[in-house]
Amino acid sequence: MTASAPHLHPDRLLPASEPARGIAREIYGAVRDLPLICPHGHTDPAWFASNGRFADPAALFLTPDHYVLRMLRSRGIDYDALGVPRRDGKPVADGRSAWRLLARNYHLFAGTPSKTWIDHSFLWAFGIDKELSPETADEIYDIIDARLADPDLLPRALLDKARVEVIATTEFALDDLPHHQAMAGEGLIGRVRTTYRPDDVTDASRPAIAENLKKFGELTGEDITRWTGLINAHRRRREYFRRFGAVATDHGVPTAITADLSGAEKQALLDKVLAGRHDADDAELFRAQMLTEMALLSVEDGMVMQIHAGSRRNTDPALFAERGPDKGADIPGPTDYVGGLSALLSRCGNEPNLRLIMFVLDETTYARELAPMAGYWSSLMIGPPWWFHDSPQGIRRYLDQVVETAGFYNLAGFNDDTRALLSIPARHDVWRREVSGFLGNWVAEHRLSKATAAELAKHLSYQAAKDAYRID
Amino acid sequence: MTASAPHLHPDRLLPASEPARGIAREIYGAVRDLPLICPHGHTDPAWFASNGRFADPAALFLTPDHYVLRMLRSRGIDYDALGVPRRDGKPVADGRSAWRLLARNYHLFAGTPSKTWIDHSFLWAFGIDKELSPETADEIYDIIDARLADPDLLPRALLDKARVEVIATTEFALDDLPHHQAMAGEGLIGRVRTTYRPDDVTDASRPAIAENLKKFGELTGEDITRWTGLINAHRRRREYFRRFGAVATDHGVPTAITADLSGAEKQALLDKVLAGRHDADDAELFRAQMLTEMALLSVEDGMVMQIHAGSRRNTDPALFAERGPDKGADIPGPTDYVGGLSALLSRCGNEPNLRLIMFVLDETTYARELAPMAGYWSSLMIGPPWWFHDSPQGIRRYLDQVVETAGFYNLAGFNDDTRALLSIPARHDVWRREVSGFLGNWVAEHRLSKATAAELAKHLSYQAAKDAYRID
Amino acid sequence: MTASAPHLHPDRLLPASEPARGIAREIYGAVRDLPLICPHGHTDPAWFASNGRFADPAALFLTPDHYVLRMLRSRGIDYDALGVPRRDGKPVADGRSAWRLLARNYHLFAGTPSKTWIDHSFLWAFGIDKELSPETADEIYDIIDARLADPDLLPRALLDKARVEVIATTEFALDDLPHHQAMAGEGLIGRVRTTYRPDDVTDASRPAIAENLKKFGELTGEDITRWTGLINAHRRRREYFRRFGAVATDHGVPTAITADLSGAEKQALLDKVLAGRHDADDAELFRAQMLTEMALLSVEDGMVMQIHAGSRRNTDPALFAERGPDKGADIPGPTDYVGGLSALLSRCGNEPNLRLIMFVLDETTYARELAPMAGYWSSLMIGPPWWFHDSPQGIRRYLDQVVETAGFYNLAGFNDDTRALLSIPARHDVWRREVSGFLGNWVAEHRLSKATAAELAKHLSYQAAKDAYRID
Repeated sequence: MTASAPHLHPDRLLPASEPARGIAREIYGAVRDLPLICPHGHTDPAWFASNGRFADPAALFLTPDHYVLRMLRSRGIDYDALGVPRRDGKPVADGRSAWRLLARNYHLFAGTPSKTWIDHSFLWAFGIDKELSPETADEIYDIIDARLADPDLLPRALLDKARVEVIATTEFALDDLPHHQAMAGEGLIGRVRTTYRPDDVTDASRPAIAENLKKFGELTGEDITRWTGLINAHRRRREYFRRFGAVATDHGVPTAITADLSGAEKQALLDKVLAGRHDADDAELFRAQMLTEMALLSVEDGMVMQIHAGSRRNTDPALFAERGPDKGADIPGPTDYVGGLSALLSRCGNEPNLRLIMFVLDETTYARELAPMAGYWSSLMIGPPWWFHDSPQGIRRYLDQVVETAGFYNLAGFNDDTRALLSIPARHDVWRREVSGFLGNWVAEHRLSKATAAELAKHLSYQAAKDAYRID
Repeated sequence: MTASAPHLHPDRLLPASEPARGIAREIYGAVRDLPLICPHGHTDPAWFASNGRFADPAALFLTPDHYVLRMLRSRGIDYDALGVPRRDGKPVADGRSAWRLLARNYHLFAGTPSKTWIDHSFLWAFGIDKELSPETADEIYDIIDARLADPDLLPRALLDKARVEVIATTEFALDDLPHHQAMAGEGLIGRVRTTYRPDDVTDASRPAIAENLKKFGELTGEDITRWTGLINAHRRRREYFRRFGAVATDHGVPTAITADLSGAEKQALLDKVLAGRHDADDAELFRAQMLTEMALLSVEDGMVMQIHAGSRRNTDPALFAERGPDKGADIPGPTDYVGGLSALLSRCGNEPNLRLIMFVLDETTYARELAPMAGYWSSLMIGPPWWFHDSPQGIRRYLDQVVETAGFYNLAGFNDDTRALLSIPARHDVWRREVSGFLGNWVAEHRLSKATAAELAKHLSYQAAKDAYRID
Repeated sequence: MTASAPHLHPDRLLPASEPARGIAREIYGAVRDLPLICPHGHTDPAWFASNGRFADPAALFLTPDHYVLRMLRSRGIDYDALGVPRRDGKPVADGRSAWRLLARNYHLFAGTPSKTWIDHSFLWAFGIDKELSPETADEIYDIIDARLADPDLLPRALLDKARVEVIATTEFALDDLPHHQAMAGEGLIGRVRTTYRPDDVTDASRPAIAENLKKFGELTGEDITRWTGLINAHRRRREYFRRFGAVATDHGVPTAITADLSGAEKQALLDKVLAGRHDADDAELFRAQMLTEMALLSVEDGMVMQIHAGSRRNTDPALFAERGPDKGADIPGPTDYVGGLSALLSRCGNEPNLRLIMFVLDETTYARELAPMAGYWSSLMIGPPWWFHDSPQGIRRYLDQVVETAGFYNLAGFNDDTRALLSIPARHDVWRREVSGFLGNWVAEHRLSKATAAELAKHLSYQAAKDAYRID
């Protein structure tokens, strides 16, 4: 990160005025180059297993990045012209013309985290110190395209270059983890880890739920038609994931509702789901009960439980029909954490072995619910600002609202949570700058000593994530 | 705006510290004197049509301004003593004594936007560089009263003086637009425009709804007893409003709920409403369906659709009975935009011709719902901070929470949305100062170049409103 | 407050940069030593009546302070080891070992208000200028323990030392006020006052409600089986409390729901409650109706009505069973003030004699509901930031969101609302610093004159509380 560019000032994001700026600069200087802990994200394990080159610049920066795609779409640019694949297989624009379209509209990203990440990636990975624009589009495309085959830009080399100490991918319960199996043979597990995300067998609103549960039974040799068998199947599958480095589970849910049903109720619910007789309320109840079951299994096996709650997925049915999920039409909603988590926490919230990390999209709950809850329950920690809120202002609002009540030590550090490998260092860098700025301001206001601020910055930049995820 | 006063410092509202202040001052200097685009507001078209003098200072600054009235009332001052007309016609205080009461209590407005607007108006329109106080009350009253007949303070001259390039008024569907007709004869339409606000025929909770719909049919020659006839009536009426410059429609609604019913359901609902057999739920459904119908008509005719959602009106029944609406007892509530707009957006949210500008009173939705939605849907833009939030801190919270996710180019610029003609330049000035301060801070934090910040400031101060409202 | 310590910088919490810091320092200097008005809190009247020494440092700083306890618990520290009494009477840690545990974990409080209050108390009351740590634990314990018997650290002397002009305690309706009776004989009433908090006879969700109501009837000589008798009992009891200085009532409620039932409905509801036939909805309705009744009695007798709304109590049933209430498991929830208070305000919100002070835990309502309501209703004022939000950032968010709409004069000044006598000056000091910082920033932004800012700072630090609570 010693490279520089006119639009990437070394002091960027730090407080605008002295003395806070100077203090923040000093704090940041001591954490800037710490290794990266990436305990939650969505990079593709195939990259690390096969270690092949990335296809082309558009495939790297544009088509998989729903942050970028949606912004262009919001200004009237068609997804076909951006090269976003269609379910009907009809042709879409090629990489270079999509890239040019991005370049022509790059001004739309002024002030967005997407621009920060892209600019940073250009410089960090490719040494490009120019901004993307209609004039530079082809030049930058060619530079990136040419460099992608270089050994220092293959996926494993990028992990080294970015000082990634640990990175977790995320796989569904039915995934056989072939890439992790391959990596196990090469001794890569530990640095690369999977994460158990059983939404495919816990979300009964999916059309394939009964089929998925059947496969789940076959895969584990358990009788998933009985509730205890179903839980056993999870128990075995979690153990299988742990063999490939998993230290955590992850659960993507629209609400934070949990349940604690009786055995008979649970069996009746499962019977309904397997028979396809369940309605939307049943599906929600099934999901709610499964969260509590996952918590109970975490008490048993010590896996850290992550809940990512509050996104209403696929709010544009036309888009979903045309191109599938994760294309920008997922929008957050209000979320009730106290009522929602009540069943789970009443059941096992005081278990010393439970570690539950909450990720939220409803910022109104930071100060009102999450910080008080994390400041009480020994099992509960607050994940970093997520998705729309993983941005400079988002991080400021988060720290503003959580630390006074939850303290700094109930935070789980940082997650980049990205599908874009190159954005990983950029995202951690924004977090480290913002943490340094926040702490620098507090030192300047005589609320913390410099020594304490330095210690907290190191904790939040590195150690907190290791501690929270129980990574040795 | 070259005039100055001790309490109106040239740097007011700009960042407190260097270097952000100096940068912001420079940005502001370049946008301060740009013409004003006023695409949404509630000035009286009669003013511009007749171009007569304003009655007296109290009628100009006090009695029509519910911001000022409610604050005085909140500290125990009676509306009779403030000259607020009563429905029972009983006498209320005269202008001068109401004015003195305002002056005696002007300290209550310390730090409020109302004070900013009034102080600015005094200086801008009348050259008064003193603050209102018990000591200055009569002197200021007399100065204003004397000046109101001067040619340069007549309504049309004020538009020139304020550099108003375009101003839209707002009229109900049953309004015949007599003042706009008069202005058409004088070639004023284009600079002054109407806006189609059909709440009088879409809000079935109004006692007069059936009668209004009947008039609506007569006015348009359509059979409003049939749903298609009702829509045709709107189609014709929108065309009539466009003849008087309308580029937009406007819809004031307590929630953002929309619906997309079948033809039979729509007809059954209309039958109920016309027969007066509808309950509160029916009224809400009717309003919800009409929003979708208005969007579909906007797809046809290209009129920009504005939704002002989230105010619970007339929360003090005693006040309403005594003095009618718009007297300070309208209070915002939580609003669900994702669920609410779902029917409308699923139906026509991807239509290239649809332009929907959302105005919100529930700030919790800025980052959680509005910015993600505007950052995805090509049809959706975010209106400026509205009503209680059209203030320095309100603008800061707005920019803080929307731009990172929605970008700057999904914002619709500024609306003054005022009933007070003299406050128009004051309100635009606050917006321009705040935008400059926000951008100046970001430049000082090295997040934007000065050139980009200057461009964004101009866009947000002028061009964005023209673009958003499709004003050539 | 002339004492100093390395970690308690004289400028702490004031703005980080000039010129705001210098201005804020000047504002703060003029309010720092004003007497304290403490119109709402939970100190024990026995302290002032008996004027005995405090038991030991842990009993002073740790075991009664749920802010401190919950934070330690949240990091896995057992309440037994912290000396928190158990309902089953089993032994818990002694004071000194609990103190050492606190000292070992004091770094967890970095950046929390708890640390601010404790550090300030150490210095202010005991002259201790060191921070608590494993190294200083015993030394500090011994200093405090030794000093607690000194005459200048007895409760009444502490009131003098802290310049407390007035302090209100809070007692339930069934309390006989023995300590206040004792103080009356010594002429202390006026400086010390009780507050009427009838939750014990208005909250029908309490198992003992019928029994409590029966006692209430006996105590007052009223027939509480009739609604009018029940109201009469309150009328008499309020009069009794006023004899011991009460100027206010207080109501702790999970929501802000109020009701305005007919006489027959009220009697039927009371019958149910007395017979124990009421369900949760009935209990809520009873509470809702009682709030309106309390407002009507306030109209009669002029007592200021306080509502503390929005805490979901005892969210950890295991903790409650083991150690009772107020141990850190109370978590706020969303609260609807407009809908909730509608019945009460429609009934008597315009009564000149009504004064209702709202305390909120749902910060989203500051700008959206509370400020507009307080800026309209003459009866309504906004209490200071409460509980989790009585912190530097909490105060900043509060002022940011309320003053532009409600003005400064609809705020009720400051309440320390504490159970910890020694934290009183620390809490007022944080408020005064934050108010000075906020105003200093506004002066630096040329939004207020220095003279106005100085006046507002004095008002918010002292006079506002006296005015709001009608304390002469």
